[in-house]
Amino acid sequence: MLALRLIERKRNGGRIEPAEWRALALAYAADEIPDYQMAALLMAAYLRGLDATETVALTEAMLDSGARLDTSGLDRPPVDKHSIGGVGDKVSVVLAPLIASAGLAVPMMSGRGLGHTGGTLDKLESIPGFRTNLTLAEARRQLEQIHCVMMSQTKEIAPADRKMYALRSATATVDSIPLIAASIMSKKLAEGLDGLVLDVKRGSGSFVTTLEDELRLAKEMIGIGLSHDCPTVALLTAMDRPLGRAVGNSLEIEEAINALTGDGPPDLMEVTYALGVEMLILGGVMTSRGEARARLEKQIRTGAAAECFKRLIAAQGGDPRVVDDPGILPQAGAVEIYTAPRRGFVARVEPRAIGRAIIEMGGGRAQMEDVIDPSVGLVITAKPGDWVEEGEPLGTIFARDRVGVDTARTALGVAITIADVAVQALPLISHRVTSDGVEVLAAGE
Amino acid sequence: MLALRLIERKRNGGRIEPAEWRALALAYAADEIPDYQMAALLMAAYLRGLDATETVALTEAMLDSGARLDTSGLDRPPVDKHSIGGVGDKVSVVLAPLIASAGLAVPMMSGRGLGHTGGTLDKLESIPGFRTNLTLAEARRQLEQIHCVMMSQTKEIAPADRKMYALRSATATVDSIPLIAASIMSKKLAEGLDGLVLDVKRGSGSFVTTLEDELRLAKEMIGIGLSHDCPTVALLTAMDRPLGRAVGNSLEIEEAINALTGDGPPDLMEVTYALGVEMLILGGVMTSRGEARARLEKQIRTGAAAECFKRLIAAQGGDPRVVDDPGILPQAGAVEIYTAPRRGFVARVEPRAIGRAIIEMGGGRAQMEDVIDPSVGLVITAKPGDWVEEGEPLGTIFARDRVGVDTARTALGVAITIADVAVQALPLISHRVTSDGVEVLAAGE
Repeated sequence: MLALRLIERKRNGGRIEPAEWRALALAYAADEIPDYQMAALLMAAYLRGLDATETVALTEAMLDSGARLDTSGLDRPPVDKHSIGGVGDKVSVVLAPLIASAGLAVPMMSGRGLGHTGGTLDKLESIPGFRTNLTLAEARRQLEQIHCVMMSQTKEIAPADRKMYALRSATATVDSIPLIAASIMSKKLAEGLDGLVLDVKRGSGSFVTTLEDELRLAKEMIGIGLSHDCPTVALLTAMDRPLGRAVGNSLEIEEAINALTGDGPPDLMEVTYALGVEMLILGGVMTSRGEARARLEKQIRTGAAAECFKRLIAAQGGDPRVVDDPGILPQAGAVEIYTAPRRGFVARVEPRAIGRAIIEMGGGRAQMEDVIDPSVGLVITAKPGDWVEEGEPLGTIFARDRVGVDTARTALGVAITIADVAVQALPLISHRVTSDGVEVLAAGE
Repeated sequence: MLALRLIERKRNGGRIEPAEWRALALAYAADEIPDYQMAALLMAAYLRGLDATETVALTEAMLDSGARLDTSGLDRPPVDKHSIGGVGDKVSVVLAPLIASAGLAVPMMSGRGLGHTGGTLDKLESIPGFRTNLTLAEARRQLEQIHCVMMSQTKEIAPADRKMYALRSATATVDSIPLIAASIMSKKLAEGLDGLVLDVKRGSGSFVTTLEDELRLAKEMIGIGLSHDCPTVALLTAMDRPLGRAVGNSLEIEEAINALTGDGPPDLMEVTYALGVEMLILGGVMTSRGEARARLEKQIRTGAAAECFKRLIAAQGGDPRVVDDPGILPQAGAVEIYTAPRRGFVARVEPRAIGRAIIEMGGGRAQMEDVIDPSVGLVITAKPGDWVEEGEPLGTIFARDRVGVDTARTALGVAITIADVAVQALPLISHRVTSDGVEVLAAGE
């Protein structure tokens, strides 16, 4: 009867009080509220919205439905970064060891890829032997020893969110900004953080596609962080084209290793450094942005970041030799160059089409049960704004077989537009959002 | 996957096509769509609405999910009346035998009471032995023999609606006008009718409380009827006070018998005649409203209507002597007069409060599983606008025991307002709605 009253109130545009959200989340996690009532409530919440107080309360309720990682008494502040998901976004793989090597603890729990966006766990598991299903106790020990862990959310973390997220996927209630914010933050706050940096993706490859929604999502998550004593900063970064050049699990790990060893593509490095600077400042190990940036560049130049990645891989059962020899990653069976069908400016490299091509090639998931092939992917060297001649290579296809190559060719033909005039792309990093407000870093859409 | 796409489309305010509604309803009835997806869809439909085409399509899909009563080849046209539910509304009990005695077939399937409104089946079952769970084959035979049947909807009728209605009750998606219209009409059209008259209740005792919504509900149902070759007419009648004097199952049967034998309260008779005239005209046995009214009065005066009720009772296993001796109905254990606490005008006799009092006294249902006591109820002789002196009887309480009497006294104290000035009540019959438009029969709110 409780649930029915709350559904009715939310349906009518009313507000559910913090104690009621708590009761709902706990009862749902305990299977005391049927899925159909929660589905009706979620649809009402989707269409009527949640106010800031409700979003904070829902987050806290989901957080409190489960366990947290104990980060008390670590010898360095735990700070993490979260991206709302993109194509070619391997920043986490670079950032976690980089930041750990620079003096912070990084207790990073990630998800798997679904739909057009990839997932950090899938990428890491392309490293032979790498294990992501650590227990909270293992994670704590590893944080003490090497200051860095990259793992899946354990079943103990926010079970109410886990159950609710599965229901949202089946009821078309995923892309609601307050529900997304609460879901992400309930899991991130379970990491016991002293600070969090958010990478809010912009453009057609993101699931939020208007600047208004992107800023709203950033502000909602920052507000939740603030209410939990976890200072949170968001950067809005471009996802109107893939980040870096590699898309696909093994290929992205290889590119991340390149980044850690000083040979990463410029856009990937810029985003990585910008997020890393925020983490170092939030963690209190740096106060000057310039010095923070210099510190990160030094960690890469000296090999300290790559060394940290090796220790991380070894600690989680993977083969650390991959850092020196990425050739031990799973390799694709059929490799072919993709060339420009005409001369002109590269107008668009559409990330959704690229992401969907990876799924079709077997390297991503349309459904959670799908098994992925880590070897397949694309390396796209052409960037929007480049001038290309007909027949000039735009990228390389890494497929399982001929069928995969043909799939990729067709997809690239759709994804890459070549035009007579250059098209304005989004600035790589456009806005910085804190609890104080929004700072515009680069103008123009 | 089909369901997910349709939920998403309805969530975004789009339209579900007739073939898609059909697929949804059939799959849901066959347990091929989980309740949680249907719940999300219903909430989206509740908040986004259905257009007229969708409402017709949903009705047809639910209708086609089950069987229909075969009324082909009857020697007289089958016509029915449906009320959206009120307090003291025993019109069906009077109208079915009255209309059958006047030359039409009346295949009436009704529901049980839930919440503050009573149900025709519950009232009929206060007649000793009366059986309402007839099969469609029994109903057909009875229609051939006595031209009248009063039964529950069988399980074969509109199973998709049955399942969906149960889900709506649990997910706060009941009071949506298109969903209500589709639910009612899917069951009424299964009766194989040549015409249908709707009694759309107005005022605080109805679940639609604005004139706009009442007219919209009437028009939606008329539109559905039209699209199924079932001419439909609606009258809007007052439910800002109980209809007639008796509220409670046995008491309402007694009042219905009084009405059939020429001794019904004026408001009950007016509504009964007005609906009956529409039925006779729809059924084609009369063309003049005046003659139709005279015919109905004659059926009562000559005893033909009461005789038909006796045959109906006997055919369905009940004791027909009840028509001559209502004393064989279950009798309340404690009977007391309720008097006016002060002098003044009767300003309000609030039907919801009366209906809830009946539940508290044991004569109604808060939940579908509740067992009801047919003997309890209230006979309220005071009508809004009456002048009363302090201590003058306003009504009689029929309770199980002292506790019930006290419950009723308290409820009547709240329900009946006596004031220094008279308050304008709704006109008894205010609007007549057909596919041609709305006719205002009485002005004023």
